[in-house]
Amino acid sequence: MTSISTYIEQNRDRFLEELFELIRIPSVSAKQENIPDMIRAAEFLKDSLEKAGASKAKIFPTAGNPVVYAEKLISPKLPTVLVYGHYDVQPAEPLDLWKSPPFEPEVRDGRIWARGADDDKGQLFMHVKAFEFMTGTGTLPCNVKFMIEGEEETGSASLEKFCRDNKKMLAADVILISDTTMVAPDLPSITSGLRGLSYMQVEVTGPDHDLHSGIYGGAVVNPCNVLCDMIASLKDRNGHITIPGFYDDVLTVSRKERNEMAKRPFDREKYMKSIGVDDLGGEKGYTDLERTGIRPTLDINGIWGGFTGEGTKTILPSKAFAKISMRLVPDQNAEKTASLFSDYFLSIAPRGVNVKVEYLHGGEAYVSPLDTPEYQAAAMAVEESFGKKPIPVRSGGSIPIVSTFEKILGIKSILMGFGLDTDAIHSPNENYPLFNLFKGIETIPLFYSHYARLKK
Amino acid sequence: MTSISTYIEQNRDRFLEELFELIRIPSVSAKQENIPDMIRAAEFLKDSLEKAGASKAKIFPTAGNPVVYAEKLISPKLPTVLVYGHYDVQPAEPLDLWKSPPFEPEVRDGRIWARGADDDKGQLFMHVKAFEFMTGTGTLPCNVKFMIEGEEETGSASLEKFCRDNKKMLAADVILISDTTMVAPDLPSITSGLRGLSYMQVEVTGPDHDLHSGIYGGAVVNPCNVLCDMIASLKDRNGHITIPGFYDDVLTVSRKERNEMAKRPFDREKYMKSIGVDDLGGEKGYTDLERTGIRPTLDINGIWGGFTGEGTKTILPSKAFAKISMRLVPDQNAEKTASLFSDYFLSIAPRGVNVKVEYLHGGEAYVSPLDTPEYQAAAMAVEESFGKKPIPVRSGGSIPIVSTFEKILGIKSILMGFGLDTDAIHSPNENYPLFNLFKGIETIPLFYSHYARLKK
Repeated sequence: MTSISTYIEQNRDRFLEELFELIRIPSVSAKQENIPDMIRAAEFLKDSLEKAGASKAKIFPTAGNPVVYAEKLISPKLPTVLVYGHYDVQPAEPLDLWKSPPFEPEVRDGRIWARGADDDKGQLFMHVKAFEFMTGTGTLPCNVKFMIEGEEETGSASLEKFCRDNKKMLAADVILISDTTMVAPDLPSITSGLRGLSYMQVEVTGPDHDLHSGIYGGAVVNPCNVLCDMIASLKDRNGHITIPGFYDDVLTVSRKERNEMAKRPFDREKYMKSIGVDDLGGEKGYTDLERTGIRPTLDINGIWGGFTGEGTKTILPSKAFAKISMRLVPDQNAEKTASLFSDYFLSIAPRGVNVKVEYLHGGEAYVSPLDTPEYQAAAMAVEESFGKKPIPVRSGGSIPIVSTFEKILGIKSILMGFGLDTDAIHSPNENYPLFNLFKGIETIPLFYSHYARLKK
Repeated sequence: MTSISTYIEQNRDRFLEELFELIRIPSVSAKQENIPDMIRAAEFLKDSLEKAGASKAKIFPTAGNPVVYAEKLISPKLPTVLVYGHYDVQPAEPLDLWKSPPFEPEVRDGRIWARGADDDKGQLFMHVKAFEFMTGTGTLPCNVKFMIEGEEETGSASLEKFCRDNKKMLAADVILISDTTMVAPDLPSITSGLRGLSYMQVEVTGPDHDLHSGIYGGAVVNPCNVLCDMIASLKDRNGHITIPGFYDDVLTVSRKERNEMAKRPFDREKYMKSIGVDDLGGEKGYTDLERTGIRPTLDINGIWGGFTGEGTKTILPSKAFAKISMRLVPDQNAEKTASLFSDYFLSIAPRGVNVKVEYLHGGEAYVSPLDTPEYQAAAMAVEESFGKKPIPVRSGGSIPIVSTFEKILGIKSILMGFGLDTDAIHSPNENYPLFNLFKGIETIPLFYSHYARLKK
């Protein structure tokens, strides 16, 4: 019988060709202009899953981008794995910083360079190919379902309803997701927790048109200055967020658990070098890993207002905007946090300006227990393919839909991701190492067989 | 003999056609792409001045945009008036807010709507046409020189050298400038003071590429948050600027002079309504007019960083920028202020980011004495044409080159402007009332005759 590694070896070029075809579709969910591309990406995946052996594959329209569903059900006696992924990608801007065009994937230095190379087209593709291998060789030991959405990068707006409407079809024992990172190939890890997210947009309006900054400056309240003042007052000098009630629901992590977490190796110098900074900073009283793992944050994702072109323009701007998002930890609620933010932000607006706050999207944090057959199957699979027992890691990122799955479908998720922190997801020059891609395809069938055995 | 009002009446349509032709040239000095337009605008003005009766008209190349010089010298016994103006305009962005295209002038509601309609093509054009009238009717009572530059909106970078190199050619008794406003047609005023300017650009760099805000957020210093913190700390809660030494050279305006200034009518409600705000604000301890007239300011003209597009992108940005300008009053020095700003701004940068400060341009404040024949001639001319004695007004705006003229050429300037605060210069929908345009053409020959008489 063909082994998975032989299968990968034999099909390596075809795998890359197929993945590149998917990557070339600029399925940026944040942009209206890419709606036709969303449909193309969904159709591509439906076809791929059918060819890979799905007995049913269907595109479900939603109020937003379509969801691709596929399944191969062998026996009601076997456990069912629901694979989740997303075919939408982040915007590629700023384009001028890419070394090769974001939607023209190419291999350099053993990595695929393209938007979506890792997040999540590359990682999702591994599941399609592992599935193709298992069905082709008759070694599929579980029932499999696929649910692939096209709105993850904009908050999975349609997926909650899709889950509610299709609870029966989606019934499963575990949701398997590859949309996270591991510490390093020689230090494999499994994501055991995710932060939640509340993503806000604020708009400060002063005068109803841009004014001459000389004629009016001094007497008219400047919305850009106001926005800076307001944002500055969202944190104190210790990096604590000042929004009243913000920390009320934060679950205290025990000293013992923090000590456990501290054992994870962390090379501060290497970390700083990889992102080009000469120091780190954040909330007082916590380590770097705690700041990204178990503590909530407040970051500006974007800010703009007034004249931003070349040269000088002496205006007192009419408007200023910012996109501000907060990463949440258990048991913070995304909507409640958005509302605390909004109340506070409006309360600190000075006279002379008009402030609007909008909650763009969000989701709750998620924690996965380690003593379940699901987690154990993943840990065994990773250990077998990477040769080292993976460590559980609380990630700073968010996949808001994971907590929604638990709430609506009652199914826990396993975050068996194969990305690396150096993959520059959401950034220019996103990339995905070929090693990780092929190692991922190799690991997935191992998960299925360990899981089937443990659930027997 | 034809009177100026008859002349205007007879040539009204031609005047508008000619002005529109000048306005249609998009001579935006802040943009590299408009360099050919700068040359076209300069050539247009050279031709216009020749046709209007200049005995010499020439385009002087500079390191930047060319300067148009023209003259009509009648007699060394007569006083010489040097008319200064500029053919460059502010960028028209944001374009979507214009009711008609910025470079396609049209007349609506008795006003010309276009970029440059007032600042300064419209106001400059009045001088060309008044000159045409005086030469055509043989009534020119002074020698006249014109110096028209193309870099006023970006800081007149080449004009200082031009003045130094051509001191003899530019020798004059007074510089006459129409590039300012009056309070209202029924409340004419002459600008007796201008604020100076120091225009800065700052750049805060955190990580060397945009990062995933979930994975890195909390531990990596966010340059957008830092920029807001830093800008917020440039003023205290009373609106005082906190830069050490900033106020050291500010000339105290006496209580008596402040009381005089307070007599100028100011309808706060009408002012607020005209710009669409429900309150004003600024430095504690000063009135609205004092805040724009005799006090220095610090305003953000533009701010940008991170993701500013539609939707959401969860990045921790690599960079944040702001354009920050300070309006100065006597005896603040622009370069010294820029250097105080720079020193302080760099000193408050936290660890984990790299901050750059650039001084883009600036100039000193200017105050014109009221008891000179120059000011008196202007006051008489305005009183005669508008039917009311003009009041002297300290304007908040800056024409940095005015103090340079005094320094290099040793000539005082008269700021006889005919614009209105509602002309929206530097804003979308810039406009210039036809009434002011034609009243301006009518007033200028009166200035010449009063001046010639007073200087006799």
